[in-house]
Amino acid sequence: MADDSIHQAFIEDPPNVPKEKPSEGAKRFRRCRSTPADPTDQKPSERGSALQAKELFKDIRPSFRLVGLLLFIYLLLGVIIFYLFMDQISGKRTNRVLDAMYFVIVTMTSVGYGDLVPKSDTTKLLACAFVFTGMAVIALFISKAADYLVEKQEVLFFKAMHMNMKGGEAKMLRAMETNRIKYKFYTVALLLVMIIVTGTLFLWKVEKLSFVDSFYCVCATITTLGYGDKSFSSKLGRVFAIFWIIMSTILMAQFFLYLAELYTERRQKMLAKWVLNRRITTMDLEAADLDGDRQVGAAEFVLYKLKELGKISQEEISSFLEEFDKLDVDQSGTISTYDLTLAQQISL
Amino acid sequence: MADDSIHQAFIEDPPNVPKEKPSEGAKRFRRCRSTPADPTDQKPSERGSALQAKELFKDIRPSFRLVGLLLFIYLLLGVIIFYLFMDQISGKRTNRVLDAMYFVIVTMTSVGYGDLVPKSDTTKLLACAFVFTGMAVIALFISKAADYLVEKQEVLFFKAMHMNMKGGEAKMLRAMETNRIKYKFYTVALLLVMIIVTGTLFLWKVEKLSFVDSFYCVCATITTLGYGDKSFSSKLGRVFAIFWIIMSTILMAQFFLYLAELYTERRQKMLAKWVLNRRITTMDLEAADLDGDRQVGAAEFVLYKLKELGKISQEEISSFLEEFDKLDVDQSGTISTYDLTLAQQISL
Repeated sequence: MADDSIHQAFIEDPPNVPKEKPSEGAKRFRRCRSTPADPTDQKPSERGSALQAKELFKDIRPSFRLVGLLLFIYLLLGVIIFYLFMDQISGKRTNRVLDAMYFVIVTMTSVGYGDLVPKSDTTKLLACAFVFTGMAVIALFISKAADYLVEKQEVLFFKAMHMNMKGGEAKMLRAMETNRIKYKFYTVALLLVMIIVTGTLFLWKVEKLSFVDSFYCVCATITTLGYGDKSFSSKLGRVFAIFWIIMSTILMAQFFLYLAELYTERRQKMLAKWVLNRRITTMDLEAADLDGDRQVGAAEFVLYKLKELGKISQEEISSFLEEFDKLDVDQSGTISTYDLTLAQQISL
Repeated sequence: MADDSIHQAFIEDPPNVPKEKPSEGAKRFRRCRSTPADPTDQKPSERGSALQAKELFKDIRPSFRLVGLLLFIYLLLGVIIFYLFMDQISGKRTNRVLDAMYFVIVTMTSVGYGDLVPKSDTTKLLACAFVFTGMAVIALFISKAADYLVEKQEVLFFKAMHMNMKGGEAKMLRAMETNRIKYKFYTVALLLVMIIVTGTLFLWKVEKLSFVDSFYCVCATITTLGYGDKSFSSKLGRVFAIFWIIMSTILMAQFFLYLAELYTERRQKMLAKWVLNRRITTMDLEAADLDGDRQVGAAEFVLYKLKELGKISQEEISSFLEEFDKLDVDQSGTISTYDLTLAQQISL
């Protein structure tokens, strides 16, 4: 039974998080779901299916490591190419390898200060190629790896915020799950402030710019504006810049991404609230009645509401209904173990 | 009946588009859905509900016109401010109003050539403020207005591609609907090529740059790299640049956005195919059985598959089930008109 309760925690709502309007009836359904006809079989089946789906995803979706490797190869290739062509690039120079790396970073993030500029046709076209591919690599990195990194930071941030909160790891993770995007947004915002402060202090103290100029250069960099009147010109400055620019531009993009997600989520929640609270009419019942028995079952009701929310389309429902019909061998309107037996006999 | 068939075309799949595996059974459900118990009532109800939802969205989501107005106000404000502070900006000058406008556009798109740079602390901080807000305005514009504009172009593009296709407007719109993102992507790609060609020709012929330099400047602009070694320096050039830069940078962002969407959609389709073709087992039946009657109805099956697809979560289903239970006054496991009558009597 201990194992069963853990299993329930995964497929059901956490019992100790208060729902908006808990009702006895809602629990009725859940109780039914966790009372399987054949208790020895249910757990492996659900777990197995989730596992299969995860494995499939692994094949389709490039992993964090793959994207990291891609970024590394891209940078290495860039450094080698621009190291070889460094004589065809004009501007303030420090160390040949360092400058090549700095140029690649400034180009791929589209900051483009212009303190180092290609002067031959070859290097100009190379820069064009690198800025396009660089944008794609950065976009891929933002969608995969950065998400992963933020999730790691998120836990630390959440812990720091709720230091005096009792209840342990599990409760914390649950609270984070319900406000996932909000916490990601806060985490990125905090990291962004930290990187702005670090960059400003570095330019002010090490590159010896005025305080306003330092802040101005930081803003021009993280937004990838890069006028280029102020940039990193010392050797130490460029070493710092290589890491700082890539981190800050990615964080800035993440910040806008999460802001947009937060906004979308809020809109969705408002719509969901409206859809839930709208009074049900006889006409709604008729529209929701999928199998035409003039009654609306629980699942039919949920499907109707999801359609109203715009979460799913009639087209999707139709393709699943076709599949359902093939499985409903005896055409009874429901699938039972009898249908599965029939299907097996036919295929034999 | 003519009206009915039009109505059906909106809520059902188009009858003359071949589905992947059409079966008699699938049609059975649809036939039921379009045979309402009270035929005079159904149409207004579904339409009314859709209308209400649309009106709600209008309130929450800023409209195309609103975003356009915001962009206009932003630009106007920018031009006025930088017109007043033009003496604190250094670089190649043409006309005071034109330069202010050019500077605002180059800043808000984060191209940042650096051919005009702020030289006082005031203008530097103003530029910082403008690049941040500019990015937000551009992001908003991309998510709303550009989508709308692309949709308009899309129809023209589709028509041009299938000039010799018979079947009329309705068929075309239907074919576009099924490959929505693909056609949006093609449209943006085509527009992007057009804007690259236009920009290169302009810089080559009017600004008298070499051909490679023209292409290089175009690439550096649309990616918002903006090294600034090549830029628009003549009066005519800057007039052109004002419109060209804002269009090209937005198109480029759209291009990457649709590319990402296309990729996501392909992944979703692969997963959907896998979920649909997976063999159903007894354990699946038990997991899908929402109301615990040891049979899986059509709607229960669809919900189970949607959950497997990751389209909906158990949490969402639970909140709808709670609502269902409140509506199921007689606790029969289904909602019928009887439940609605009971609910009304209680509230009276």
